[in-house]
Amino acid sequence: MVPRRSFTIDTEKTTRTTYVLGTELTVNLNRCAPPESKFFSVKCSPNVYYKITPQAKDKNAVPYPLTPNTVLIVTMDAVSKTANDSKLSVRFYGEKTEALGDALLHLTAVEISLDVDADRDGVVEKNNPNKGSWKWGPKGHGAILLVNCDSETTYKKTLDSDNDEIRKVSDLQDMSKMILRTNGPAELPEGYKLTMHISQSTSENVRVFRPRAKGKKVDGWKHKLLKLFLKDYIMVVGTEMLTQEVPYLGGKTEQEFFVEGLRFPDIDFDGLITINLSLLEPCGKGFPETPVFTDKVVFHISPWIMTPNTLKPVEVYVCSTDDNYAFLKSIRNLVEKCGYKLKICHKYMNRGDRWMQDELEFGYIDSPHHHFPVVLDSPRDGALQDFPYDSILGPDFGYVTRYALNEEVSSLDSFGNLEVSPPVTVNGKSYPLGRIIIGVAFPTATHGRNMTKVVQDFLWAQKVQEPIALYSDWLYVGHVDEFMSFVPAPDRKKFRLLLASPDAGYKVFKSLQISGNGKAEMFLGLPEAISVNEILSDKKLQAENRYVQNCIDWNRDVLKKELGLDDEDIIDLPILFKLSEEETRAVAYYPDMVNMIVLGDQLGIPKPFGPKVNGRCALETEVCSLLEPLGLKCTFIDDFAPYHKLLGEVHCGSNVLRERSPFKWWNLEL
Amino acid sequence: MVPRRSFTIDTEKTTRTTYVLGTELTVNLNRCAPPESKFFSVKCSPNVYYKITPQAKDKNAVPYPLTPNTVLIVTMDAVSKTANDSKLSVRFYGEKTEALGDALLHLTAVEISLDVDADRDGVVEKNNPNKGSWKWGPKGHGAILLVNCDSETTYKKTLDSDNDEIRKVSDLQDMSKMILRTNGPAELPEGYKLTMHISQSTSENVRVFRPRAKGKKVDGWKHKLLKLFLKDYIMVVGTEMLTQEVPYLGGKTEQEFFVEGLRFPDIDFDGLITINLSLLEPCGKGFPETPVFTDKVVFHISPWIMTPNTLKPVEVYVCSTDDNYAFLKSIRNLVEKCGYKLKICHKYMNRGDRWMQDELEFGYIDSPHHHFPVVLDSPRDGALQDFPYDSILGPDFGYVTRYALNEEVSSLDSFGNLEVSPPVTVNGKSYPLGRIIIGVAFPTATHGRNMTKVVQDFLWAQKVQEPIALYSDWLYVGHVDEFMSFVPAPDRKKFRLLLASPDAGYKVFKSLQISGNGKAEMFLGLPEAISVNEILSDKKLQAENRYVQNCIDWNRDVLKKELGLDDEDIIDLPILFKLSEEETRAVAYYPDMVNMIVLGDQLGIPKPFGPKVNGRCALETEVCSLLEPLGLKCTFIDDFAPYHKLLGEVHCGSNVLRERSPFKWWNLEL
Repeated sequence: MVPRRSFTIDTEKTTRTTYVLGTELTVNLNRCAPPESKFFSVKCSPNVYYKITPQAKDKNAVPYPLTPNTVLIVTMDAVSKTANDSKLSVRFYGEKTEALGDALLHLTAVEISLDVDADRDGVVEKNNPNKGSWKWGPKGHGAILLVNCDSETTYKKTLDSDNDEIRKVSDLQDMSKMILRTNGPAELPEGYKLTMHISQSTSENVRVFRPRAKGKKVDGWKHKLLKLFLKDYIMVVGTEMLTQEVPYLGGKTEQEFFVEGLRFPDIDFDGLITINLSLLEPCGKGFPETPVFTDKVVFHISPWIMTPNTLKPVEVYVCSTDDNYAFLKSIRNLVEKCGYKLKICHKYMNRGDRWMQDELEFGYIDSPHHHFPVVLDSPRDGALQDFPYDSILGPDFGYVTRYALNEEVSSLDSFGNLEVSPPVTVNGKSYPLGRIIIGVAFPTATHGRNMTKVVQDFLWAQKVQEPIALYSDWLYVGHVDEFMSFVPAPDRKKFRLLLASPDAGYKVFKSLQISGNGKAEMFLGLPEAISVNEILSDKKLQAENRYVQNCIDWNRDVLKKELGLDDEDIIDLPILFKLSEEETRAVAYYPDMVNMIVLGDQLGIPKPFGPKVNGRCALETEVCSLLEPLGLKCTFIDDFAPYHKLLGEVHCGSNVLRERSPFKWWNLEL
Repeated sequence: MVPRRSFTIDTEKTTRTTYVLGTELTVNLNRCAPPESKFFSVKCSPNVYYKITPQAKDKNAVPYPLTPNTVLIVTMDAVSKTANDSKLSVRFYGEKTEALGDALLHLTAVEISLDVDADRDGVVEKNNPNKGSWKWGPKGHGAILLVNCDSETTYKKTLDSDNDEIRKVSDLQDMSKMILRTNGPAELPEGYKLTMHISQSTSENVRVFRPRAKGKKVDGWKHKLLKLFLKDYIMVVGTEMLTQEVPYLGGKTEQEFFVEGLRFPDIDFDGLITINLSLLEPCGKGFPETPVFTDKVVFHISPWIMTPNTLKPVEVYVCSTDDNYAFLKSIRNLVEKCGYKLKICHKYMNRGDRWMQDELEFGYIDSPHHHFPVVLDSPRDGALQDFPYDSILGPDFGYVTRYALNEEVSSLDSFGNLEVSPPVTVNGKSYPLGRIIIGVAFPTATHGRNMTKVVQDFLWAQKVQEPIALYSDWLYVGHVDEFMSFVPAPDRKKFRLLLASPDAGYKVFKSLQISGNGKAEMFLGLPEAISVNEILSDKKLQAENRYVQNCIDWNRDVLKKELGLDDEDIIDLPILFKLSEEETRAVAYYPDMVNMIVLGDQLGIPKPFGPKVNGRCALETEVCSLLEPLGLKCTFIDDFAPYHKLLGEVHCGSNVLRERSPFKWWNLEL
């Protein structure tokens, strides 16, 4: 709909106004007509056009009859060369067509367009008709903004979004470009101003900067080169600055603005940001100006997006501790064989906290013009707590965290309890970025542990990977990565869900017994050594594993439903659990093979130390027979002393930064 | 989709489980088959059914071949008479069809359904397939809940929602009924339990009660009459009680529950509430039970809904003060003539605060089973601040407020600045409950006043009357009711928007001058008396009114766009303003006729004290000529001394409780 502006003209003095191309001035003639007026006629400059509503019955009846609701609609089709260079006049007549007065209007036409990349192609197009709204999907529209959550500096660093000035020119890359295109006379008529403005609540979520220097003339032959020094950028709107005048440069010009996102979507913020630009008209001395034209643009903040195991790894993170030299060497061999980078967090930084999976989760933010990885820092805050901020945050590597204020932080807040599925389609609904998976208390538990509400709210608010809540509180440590993982596969849905399965575990041990290997020992050579026969005769262990299988099956049913999986999409890995003495909560009986690191088709699996048959571990044999047909390569890594005995495994002790998904989040149909 | 439950059977001992009608048990046979098994066969009681997937190629090949993914799907079609009265057994065979073992399963079938009024007809139907989700619209579904924000007691009253016990049986009317229907043997097999549960965040928004006494047997001939004493109701789930066992009564039974809403939708709450009921299965001594079946129901909290001027009045509220006797008499006459009730707020309660419009706004909540009015108490908190809680809150009259915690409360928080339009359709989008209208600062103002964010967030979160923000900060008092109102009309959109118009005012005065009445005086007999000629020669007043007309025209354009109005839907009332000395903000020059009370076709309009022609006020004549053709009756009420001089008028000094809209909010297409 064309923006319309109610306007009044006057028979007692000439009225002047500035008209913005593409709008309509609507003049209620009856309002300004001298009393007794019955007819009127209109004259205007050639670039001024008018319509009359309601249309006179006899179109040729000039002068036109004046009715109580006669409205004159005025438009123009070209910008003015000088102020007030276009004219329109209305003459009013009485009963006998005697002239009662003339109302004169002097017009200055300008073109004003606040522009963004509403079609999401990386280029700021001119006056996209959809720039003022957001629509999801490949046929959608609306510009995109990144939270400027990285840090351009590495020395004395802070989040860029914590500074209300631009300290490095490279920071502009993290912002979305916005262009103010104007065309008109060299100067606006006296008293007119352009002003940019945002709402109070928006001011918590965005800042807009512009170069202090003037923009370049598009149709001039000389380009004024911008000197890109720091002080050359000033904040136009943002925190505690809801409105500010912006210059009108005259002629046909483009001014660049840089828009910086400050906050991720959350329970109280839907991620949408509106920025307005208004033309203010003077109302005479002593009166505030009033806006006569407002253009608005809408941005959506990029959500924080997680990367499933099926995406290509970039870098593997692991801690170096006093006791994990051999483990570290195995990981290094595996990572180097795959050709990825290895990043070691050293002792001075990890202070003995080896649970690299638990302190942080890698994700990314994405837009048509720029993208970078963002680490989500867990409120877990073990001895590794400074690592994400101190060692990961940097140029084009963002950081975000949530603080648990009035809530207790539990083991379920560790990010071994936060995973994401590969892309799935569920009952026709597609999740091309997968679905987030977290673990919480059994819904029916009276005193369950939970992931903090602040983190859950954050995850749900990102919207593009709708979370699934599994029940992980039955585990002593309580992380979903203790019983599930995803691996790539060449067929079906392009992945398999791996689940720990005591039933599958018992099946292996029973087969060994039947095939005459009942005396073969697990944990051979370790103090814990125990034979297959002894394991199978342990009724307490059997009952505990019956319970564990029930818990996992409950999750299996949820995952089948929420990810749209068939039994053929799931592989049961032979893993036994036992319950901790005090808590009736489960821990892995032997290294928990599902807690693996997935690097493309290479899997780094906790070495289970199972009973050997013909010199080969029967559990490894079984797992290889399940996974190798999918083209996966299994490397079994000894994590027994430094991880398994401390109730974690390979996955808990590592983290993988992966490439972003080729799917663009804004193309989701939400 | 039929709920499926993964289940394991065992060749070493008989497995027992409880099956819920309408679900499927899926048994992965390979998991429990003895090693070396190649074939299997199945036998079962006549009321037990099974399917095998993947289906064998040769359907008649018995025993069936066992594949790695063979799944047995078990269903039943009738409830059990006694525990474990149905059986299924699977026999496994080796390569040469020699029997390797039998897995026995004993089944108890029950029927469980947690039921609500998901089809919104006021009756709790049985197992509505849509009971677990919410969909807006006449073809939508989902049960509805009221916030129990009234008070059953009048002595020592508190909001009912502030008490976690039921103190009067009448309070049950404000809750939504929920029925647990079960059918099965007299008792559940040993160790099984039914439990109701809600999430942590839901527990802030809802409570569920049940009678302590047992329910009635539906098929028994004796009905156990429930003694409805207070202690006969106990809270099942709610604040600090996320889960609790509920009794299984045996046979075919219905248990009633009562669901109480606690919070209105707000920025951090979408109004949706999920309540779950699970059947817990024992896992053996020392292990927690696990849920084997979960039924869930969803409620949507009724939003708070405002009532436009076009709805039928019920009761008119007005203050009695030391100086408004005559005004009160005029209002009483008008209200009695119309046949509505008048409620007077006396001095001891109003303590001199006469602005009944500003302290509160009437609305209502609605559901298929019950509805009542709810007063929204403004954070304005003048001397009238205790009136809504102390005098209005009561049985079936609810109360809600919002507290401005970290924000300054301004004059824009008075509810003269909160109105609602009649039903409109805008570009094809229908708003059958109208749209809320509030006034805020000019978007481009540097130091504007605003309505507090807590109130704005509340209004936006109700969703069903999507708000429009007008710009009222140009007024000294700053309320939208100073320049606009809605009146019913027989034609077009069934209403007109009335706008104050200085242009229309000047037109009246100019006509008077032309017709020789230039010496006629406004405010005749008052110290303020002034002639038409003097008014017209006041250039300062003219300039001020030019500015005011600009401000109103800005709002006129917003209203036309957001309410889909044409110029023919708008009537300009002749009203002049003047600016206050210090603030450059406007106040009405003479009683502001648009600030009227609308009671059906009767309008109580501030008496303008305009210049008289032939003994009749020219402003009244003009207003009558504009409104009477619509079938409206104008009564001009003298509010000069007790209201106008204090910068308010009739509307500011009154409030109207109206009937609810016949349109049901859940039928909106959102």
